[in-house]
Amino acid sequence: MNRIPFEGVIAYPITPFDDQDRVDLPLFRSLLERLVISGANGIAPLGSTGVLPYLRREEEEALTEATLQQVDGRLPVLVGVSHLTTADTIYHARFAEKAGAAAVMILPMSYWKLSDEEIFRHYESVAQAINIPIMAYNNPATSGLDMSPALLRRLLGIDNVTMIKESSGDIHRMHLLQQMLGDDAALYNGSNPMALAAFAAGARGWCTAAPNLVPEQNNALYQAIRQNDLARAQASFTQQAGLLRFMVAKGLPRVVQAGLELRGIPSGGLRKPLLPLSADEKNTLQELLKACS
Amino acid sequence: MNRIPFEGVIAYPITPFDDQDRVDLPLFRSLLERLVISGANGIAPLGSTGVLPYLRREEEEALTEATLQQVDGRLPVLVGVSHLTTADTIYHARFAEKAGAAAVMILPMSYWKLSDEEIFRHYESVAQAINIPIMAYNNPATSGLDMSPALLRRLLGIDNVTMIKESSGDIHRMHLLQQMLGDDAALYNGSNPMALAAFAAGARGWCTAAPNLVPEQNNALYQAIRQNDLARAQASFTQQAGLLRFMVAKGLPRVVQAGLELRGIPSGGLRKPLLPLSADEKNTLQELLKACS
Amino acid sequence: MNRIPFEGVIAYPITPFDDQDRVDLPLFRSLLERLVISGANGIAPLGSTGVLPYLRREEEEALTEATLQQVDGRLPVLVGVSHLTTADTIYHARFAEKAGAAAVMILPMSYWKLSDEEIFRHYESVAQAINIPIMAYNNPATSGLDMSPALLRRLLGIDNVTMIKESSGDIHRMHLLQQMLGDDAALYNGSNPMALAAFAAGARGWCTAAPNLVPEQNNALYQAIRQNDLARAQASFTQQAGLLRFMVAKGLPRVVQAGLELRGIPSGGLRKPLLPLSADEKNTLQELLKACS
Amino acid sequence: MNRIPFEGVIAYPITPFDDQDRVDLPLFRSLLERLVISGANGIAPLGSTGVLPYLRREEEEALTEATLQQVDGRLPVLVGVSHLTTADTIYHARFAEKAGAAAVMILPMSYWKLSDEEIFRHYESVAQAINIPIMAYNNPATSGLDMSPALLRRLLGIDNVTMIKESSGDIHRMHLLQQMLGDDAALYNGSNPMALAAFAAGARGWCTAAPNLVPEQNNALYQAIRQNDLARAQASFTQQAGLLRFMVAKGLPRVVQAGLELRGIPSGGLRKPLLPLSADEKNTLQELLKACS
Repeated sequence: MNRIPFEGVIAYPITPFDDQDRVDLPLFRSLLERLVISGANGIAPLGSTGVLPYLRREEEEALTEATLQQVDGRLPVLVGVSHLTTADTIYHARFAEKAGAAAVMILPMSYWKLSDEEIFRHYESVAQAINIPIMAYNNPATSGLDMSPALLRRLLGIDNVTMIKESSGDIHRMHLLQQMLGDDAALYNGSNPMALAAFAAGARGWCTAAPNLVPEQNNALYQAIRQNDLARAQASFTQQAGLLRFMVAKGLPRVVQAGLELRGIPSGGLRKPLLPLSADEKNTLQELLKACS
Repeated sequence: MNRIPFEGVIAYPITPFDDQDRVDLPLFRSLLERLVISGANGIAPLGSTGVLPYLRREEEEALTEATLQQVDGRLPVLVGVSHLTTADTIYHARFAEKAGAAAVMILPMSYWKLSDEEIFRHYESVAQAINIPIMAYNNPATSGLDMSPALLRRLLGIDNVTMIKESSGDIHRMHLLQQMLGDDAALYNGSNPMALAAFAAGARGWCTAAPNLVPEQNNALYQAIRQNDLARAQASFTQQAGLLRFMVAKGLPRVVQAGLELRGIPSGGLRKPLLPLSADEKNTLQELLKACS
Repeated sequence: MNRIPFEGVIAYPITPFDDQDRVDLPLFRSLLERLVISGANGIAPLGSTGVLPYLRREEEEALTEATLQQVDGRLPVLVGVSHLTTADTIYHARFAEKAGAAAVMILPMSYWKLSDEEIFRHYESVAQAINIPIMAYNNPATSGLDMSPALLRRLLGIDNVTMIKESSGDIHRMHLLQQMLGDDAALYNGSNPMALAAFAAGARGWCTAAPNLVPEQNNALYQAIRQNDLARAQASFTQQAGLLRFMVAKGLPRVVQAGLELRGIPSGGLRKPLLPLSADEKNTLQELLKACS
Repeated sequence: MNRIPFEGVIAYPITPFDDQDRVDLPLFRSLLERLVISGANGIAPLGSTGVLPYLRREEEEALTEATLQQVDGRLPVLVGVSHLTTADTIYHARFAEKAGAAAVMILPMSYWKLSDEEIFRHYESVAQAINIPIMAYNNPATSGLDMSPALLRRLLGIDNVTMIKESSGDIHRMHLLQQMLGDDAALYNGSNPMALAAFAAGARGWCTAAPNLVPEQNNALYQAIRQNDLARAQASFTQQAGLLRFMVAKGLPRVVQAGLELRGIPSGGLRKPLLPLSADEKNTLQELLKACS
């Protein structure tokens, strides 16, 4: 098993719905194909961008299988399997492994605030049930739980928890993790507006929905970092920063869906309660897309 | 339709699980019966206390039906039907109505932060699909969304949204709502440690899991308020405040489960990732229960 | 020494300035006289309302002496002596004692966040330098420091620290202090919009600038509480709550100054950078004052 | 007038006190001289590090004059003149200009939360009274006021407000300011643990007390940035990050005082309520200093 199969730009597809509120699998595959050939270094279905929490079990399974078939080994695939109960998380982690995922990503979804012990046991139980690596994901804004650096370090003690994705949006946290975990740490940044700062801090990858809209710019930022060219990275980031902020402010699936539409690419519909961007918001998005090119 | 069927102490049952992680329906009914005869003024299954988000569809349906059968008209029943998608919320709201619920409670569950418009449309869609009243529920800590007083007022403009439950735990919010909504407002407090202050501010009811453990004390507080006896209400609250704080700090289902066990009442198990209280926590709980009697 | 000389409504005068930015002592005395005969139970010059931090040493001394002379024993006087350095705090505490203050109020002003040990030593040093009681004052919003209930309890171990004023605006804090400190605790509420909830929680007094504008209403709330009449207290509070919120939102000295002006009472000017309320704000204030009567 | 006289590392001296709590001017000058020859690009007395708010008027004047005499034109000097009242701020800004300061730094000290209009008028009044540039300083943690990017942009419309120092510690804020203000913006970072991220975001300078202890490391970070060598900047930052975090956590004057002492350099005493670091804290600091070398 490749313990750390990801680096660079890890692209998150949206999940498109048809008029009857059903997942549109053919459209999903065509949107996915755009990401695969965009220059991204990895593919991550069923994340926040893919509205995982809004899906039913059979939909998740169909999307997992469709992704692995479509990608067909061209890039490593990171499948989101976060669920509220430990049992459901294990179920979907096993499904993803069987389907061929390189790793699974797990956010400790909370309704009740979980204790550190509860979170640890949750990861441990899932880890024991599969043989592929796990990316532990910290995102207080969507999960309602903020995993401390100390807890994340403890999670890395579980054999196949090998990667950490940080989306708290706090650069101090990223620095602290980098320092606590050392050079071996496989840290990934999930906060789009912090893309430059996180790379500067040493993040190994950037988990992002932006390649659905501006893949060249996203890749250019990563290439500048790889080439140790801070000035170029700064210029690249400045160009796309407005869009990255807007994506987070308005919600990734909503902005990606509208952005694809503005570019003339069929993007399907959203599942309610999510609503399309308003006309004003679409105008703003249009301007921000122009600023990137 | 009784537009405002609730007042006073509204009691929340837990959902017990057996060794196989299955909902233990007979035990649920026996725990429910304790609440029905405890002096509470209403019963609310499938709330946070009942770990609604951790349940599968068929489990929710079984619990809803079991509740209505067991209560059998002795008290009004408020069924929690909060789901992430609008479609699922409608499905369960209709089910609850058919089963005989007096009203449904809806928390705007978020994964993506919803806009005010998205929240409004969500409630409106559910309201149009049923003919019983809705209690809109604001609980930023568990839902990740904080509905402003202005949005709550807008929701009350939907015909069968008639009640508001506030669990932000901020007394200023309760005062402001009371003032904005006037005497007609049916405001309910869902923050246990704010029980006295919310009643003093004019709340019509107290949504609480505490009657699973100390129903006499909970009822006594409400009776003192009804009799306009602040000094007695204060004394009653002071007696139970430690327990109420502990329940919130450690999680309602975990504390109720442990508290029943301490009292020698079969309480079943929790669904993972939730874990039982530690030995130390149980000792603390034991002391807090003693302080109430 | 009367260790707990205050209860009920403790009124805070503003400090008026003349055209030359000098303290207008005659006007101060006339505004102070209004408070003394308003029915308040205590007088507290040189608080936030009196813009203590904006004053020079000689101005503080003049205001302290003017207050004690004008009140002339009719009510107990609580002089604010909060300063950034321990040496300055001691200097002014001694001055207040000599002038005849019943007690001094001390907020642990911070620029650098002080440790608990630094705060404790600060109070201890002042306490040892005087023979009148000290009211320890917690107000995170103005001081930048939030003293925990544990620290406040430790402060009460200093012989002449006998009273606590809480202005964090969090009702849970008030309940917790009440419980930790027991019946002997002399707790005062400094958050105007929490006046009802704090009295309901057992606060002994209400530190407020509101009697400059609506003393009858403030006194009526306290009388209802003393008579254990919650319904009347609630009605009284509801009447004045809009004004109390506005006073906090716009700043006590600015609102009192404008409110006196609206009532045709000479109120002097503010010291810059403070600016008078805008015309719109004055209109709102006018409405809120009407609502109180 | 040089409108933007600062770039790179701007070093902040502490203010040492003698046994009698008097400013020790000879010691101040000797500590200052260490900074001048340390390779720093500018000197900034009477900042937070210099405990400006704890000083008396005559002490401020003496420190201002001593600084300008000692530096003697070798580096540009930025004098802190932040005061609660507009009148006092003007007084000290004029004093600094007369003494030869290249610019003054102004934090909008609040006791009462100031409105945007009050803050704007405050800066405008000071700006009109002097002929040297002003660095507007945003530091919510110490001032209690958070100036929005929109307000900062408005302040830059005042003729001699030409520089902005940001210490909110939020990298998103730095990026947003950079984007809103464009290439002309003279942005300085005042958050030590954000030194790398802020330079990566385009900050022109780093306002820091760290050169009192580890000037070579601070300068090395800046040189790596100037040479567009991100990898070296990252390595340099990682080496000193632990110390930088500790300095902020424990308070700049306390840590600098203890660190000088540990290095065998006379550092004087602190003014109460500030207390020296504890023995444990000194041990930690010793380790952190070692890690830098």
